Amino acid sequence: MYDPLLLPELREMLIENDARAMQEFCEVFHSGVIAENLEALSAPECWAVLSHTDLRRRVEIFEFLSLPRQMELVATLDKTHLSALLEEMSSDDRVALLKNMDPAQVELLMPLFAQAERGDIRKLLSYPEHSAGSIMTTDYASLPEGITAREALAQLRSQAPDRETIYYVYVLDHARHLHGFVSLRKLFLARPDALVSELMDKDVISVRVDDDQEVVANKIARYDFIAMPVVDDQGRLVGIVTHDDVLDVVQQEATEDAHLMGAVAPLEDGYLDTPFLTLAWKRGIWLVLLLVAGFGTSEVLSHYNKETERWEWLVWFLPLVLASGGNAGSQSATLVIRALALGQLDRQTQLRIGKRELLTGFVLGATLAFLGFAFASFHVVSADAAVVAGTVALVVTLGTVNGTLLPIALKRLGFDPALMSNPLIASLSDILGVLIYYNVALLALGR
Amino acid sequence: MYDPLLLPELREMLIENDARAMQEFCEVFHSGVIAENLEALSAPECWAVLSHTDLRRRVEIFEFLSLPRQMELVATLDKTHLSALLEEMSSDDRVALLKNMDPAQVELLMPLFAQAERGDIRKLLSYPEHSAGSIMTTDYASLPEGITAREALAQLRSQAPDRETIYYVYVLDHARHLHGFVSLRKLFLARPDALVSELMDKDVISVRVDDDQEVVANKIARYDFIAMPVVDDQGRLVGIVTHDDVLDVVQQEATEDAHLMGAVAPLEDGYLDTPFLTLAWKRGIWLVLLLVAGFGTSEVLSHYNKETERWEWLVWFLPLVLASGGNAGSQSATLVIRALALGQLDRQTQLRIGKRELLTGFVLGATLAFLGFAFASFHVVSADAAVVAGTVALVVTLGTVNGTLLPIALKRLGFDPALMSNPLIASLSDILGVLIYYNVALLALGR
Repeated sequence: MYDPLLLPELREMLIENDARAMQEFCEVFHSGVIAENLEALSAPECWAVLSHTDLRRRVEIFEFLSLPRQMELVATLDKTHLSALLEEMSSDDRVALLKNMDPAQVELLMPLFAQAERGDIRKLLSYPEHSAGSIMTTDYASLPEGITAREALAQLRSQAPDRETIYYVYVLDHARHLHGFVSLRKLFLARPDALVSELMDKDVISVRVDDDQEVVANKIARYDFIAMPVVDDQGRLVGIVTHDDVLDVVQQEATEDAHLMGAVAPLEDGYLDTPFLTLAWKRGIWLVLLLVAGFGTSEVLSHYNKETERWEWLVWFLPLVLASGGNAGSQSATLVIRALALGQLDRQTQLRIGKRELLTGFVLGATLAFLGFAFASFHVVSADAAVVAGTVALVVTLGTVNGTLLPIALKRLGFDPALMSNPLIASLSDILGVLIYYNVALLALGR
Repeated sequence: MYDPLLLPELREMLIENDARAMQEFCEVFHSGVIAENLEALSAPECWAVLSHTDLRRRVEIFEFLSLPRQMELVATLDKTHLSALLEEMSSDDRVALLKNMDPAQVELLMPLFAQAERGDIRKLLSYPEHSAGSIMTTDYASLPEGITAREALAQLRSQAPDRETIYYVYVLDHARHLHGFVSLRKLFLARPDALVSELMDKDVISVRVDDDQEVVANKIARYDFIAMPVVDDQGRLVGIVTHDDVLDVVQQEATEDAHLMGAVAPLEDGYLDTPFLTLAWKRGIWLVLLLVAGFGTSEVLSHYNKETERWEWLVWFLPLVLASGGNAGSQSATLVIRALALGQLDRQTQLRIGKRELLTGFVLGATLAFLGFAFASFHVVSADAAVVAGTVALVVTLGTVNGTLLPIALKRLGFDPALMSNPLIASLSDILGVLIYYNVALLALGR
């Protein structure tokens, strides 16, 4: 979202090739603001603007561009410029970009990095998607235990230029085992001769490198951290995840879950940036699947329809009965899926809510049945209205239980519970609803 | 979520009244961890544990407790202890607590605060919920323009103990107008005699005090800030919103939207903490509304059913036709609502996607119609299958358009677009679907 005042000015600078104005533009504004306006220009125009500032600033701005845009821009660079750019990038943004590039091209670039950097890159590239390792940066600030606050501040001053944050500093031994944590604020306020080992918190909250990014997000949200240390299975610090990346993760996971719940396969880019055919495909596969489920309902319905022809009113209330079950189920699924995403449901509580939802379903089912009976009585005799009401009570209760248990079952099987979308719950509810409705009718009214 | 190892130990300390162990417990662990374990104890037990540490630490831990828990705990305090606790709390957490208390009780407490503090509290209490003002803190660090980095660091050292963060510092004139922003990192790395006015960024990105909290969240996410300055309409700094509060806002808004989309009125507490009857009510009102919509469908259906008795197969495909429209509509609504929440759709793009969704609906409708025709042909003759297929094409296209436009319309009318829940879209689609289905049939097959 470019600035409607800034962008025309920027275009003018380009036309007039006004070097001083472009240099000022790159310096005065926040890198994020500059990046937003660059998104509206062509790749050569972007480089023309960015050439008026130094490499460090250029990379700062570049890192704020969207990934598709970054890909476009690097495609126009030769190997030397590309490796200089990558060298300067922070380790997490660099890996995100390399992951999107052709692996063969990445291999060609590798020899251009320094030995140590190469190892770092290969390691970071190897972590599975959505793991803590895949979103962390290795540019963290660290200190040994035995020094004083004064020495610590001096060391931080020399580390600072290459670190993602110096506000949280980790205390390590020679083997990089994580012993403690101290904030810059604490060091800054401490007596200069206080020892880091006295100042540091020894109870460090960390995540494992193979933890899911959702775990990282929930922990950082719970403890209000600026960064979260990531350790390997030997307790050695391997990286940190910073607050800004966590915020992106939370928004991204919420979007993914929302899309899944609406029966859309998750989009990789923003809604507007997703090409038409990709979007149609990500919706189409779900719609086709749901259509097949719909034909299941048709099969069942055609079977019963013959037997119940004499009660033509049955059909009138069919959509209502089916919708009630689907709606109650969607509610339960929504509540459970969101609570699972926020890490609020552990194994014990999962059982507890199963019982609670059964009771809720029963209360809601009874209420709706009562109202359903009253409404239906306007059209049909009491015995018939009772069939509608009884079915509503049953489908609502069952819908609630299914809506609760199916996402939990998916989660236990290792799938994303959000796959149990509202439309899918409604589809399953349809088949079940038809079965219940016609059987209740046949049972109550006789064959 | 208490620690299964720590909690029994803590209970033992209480039974043995082991003062030293409790003091250590309050000091060694992260305040968030301590708070989690306190959630499992009774209010008097909590105070028994917390009495073993000083007020500052006690408040730090207290602020990590859930709001319902905080309310329980303050209810057991006398006026003197309560005002000491409130005095020490950070301004945003304090206001959140006071907002939950009985206004009469708040008035009784007011005279206990210092004059300046009282004004601050009243001001913060007055901001509407979900506004930037309602989540900001007034405990920010600020500096005048004319001093050097050395002087700035000295001033920060004295401000630090009472500030929420000292990592972001705001540069103000006498009237508190926001002139610039400088990070502690920059001050810390600068030459000691560099002027703050040279070091600071003059293009400060800020939000207005009456901006919605979603705007704050999206801005902070876009620019990777630790804190965001909040200004009034004269450009004077009135507070800051910090990264941790923004993370809470993002999670809270995503939960609220997810619940609304699943047709559950938003819960104020966590899913497990919400009382049974509250939850039943928040679901029940929606289910009843949707039931009424269902009776609308019944009315329409009963009207057409008489006329179309001879084509008994029409009923077989009724759930399928209705579900297709609802599913396509849910997808569109989900995509649009999420994009609106992330601030990705401005007024221009809203029109653009209207057109795109119409096209998408058309492509999806045609695909589903084709498959629908193939399936239906197993049961009925081609002319009849064509009625099913034609209806599917129409309801999918219309469902897509409705699912897109209705949330946008809600947003423009000043409502939350997420009110257009999947079940509601499905309900509207049901009525429309019945109308289309029977009219297509009557038109194609003759009366």
